[in-house]
Amino acid sequence: MDDGTTIAATSEQLAEVRFNADGLVPVIAQDVLNGDVLMMAWMNRESLDMTLSEGRMVYWSRSRQELWRKGDTSGDHQLVREAFFDCDGDTLLFKVEQVGAGACHTGERTCFFRSFG
Amino acid sequence: MDDGTTIAATSEQLAEVRFNADGLVPVIAQDVLNGDVLMMAWMNRESLDMTLSEGRMVYWSRSRQELWRKGDTSGDHQLVREAFFDCDGDTLLFKVEQVGAGACHTGERTCFFRSFG
Repeated sequence: MDDGTTIAATSEQLAEVRFNADGLVPVIAQDVLNGDVLMMAWMNRESLDMTLSEGRMVYWSRSRQELWRKGDTSGDHQLVREAFFDCDGDTLLFKVEQVGAGACHTGERTCFFRSFG
Repeated sequence: MDDGTTIAATSEQLAEVRFNADGLVPVIAQDVLNGDVLMMAWMNRESLDMTLSEGRMVYWSRSRQELWRKGDTSGDHQLVREAFFDCDGDTLLFKVEQVGAGACHTGERTCFFRSFG
């Protein structure tokens, strides 16, 4: 398997990230190849550090209250390619290479497979 | 100015949306033309209804605790083109046509203009 891109964030950049009262920040995962928004999930500081240093998306599961290294169970990993933080530092955007069937636990490639109207 | 696309969501679709304890749901705005993720903000049920019926993005401002019809002050509206909800209904994705300078209050086109590393 191809490796993800590790990212050496500076302490100044990391200090810009504003975690909420639960110590979490929302993270958007976007397919680097076609631009599709794949999913939105959450990271705490530990999972953010792991994601940047491993080059693989590691979220914090709010339902299970544990680190969630995406794909460890399903095989559907997400390899990091680029990482961004927004103007007020309270949302992150990762451009990823989706491995396997897709991002969604339903088997769909993106979690946003249902439209209004 | 071009008009946004109004969307007639069914009651079944709207019932899938899961608002958090504050009555809010995170909303990703994506540029329908180039796929850029522009911003992430929040909607309550009222602003979601207004967005779908007006075809223009209306958020809930958590800092001001009021409805935020994007662009009313800046002129930088967002016209609705397509709307999606994710597998567990706790995040929305809108594909929009960004009018004016951009989505970000800094003047940048996208709020995610800063990268890690």
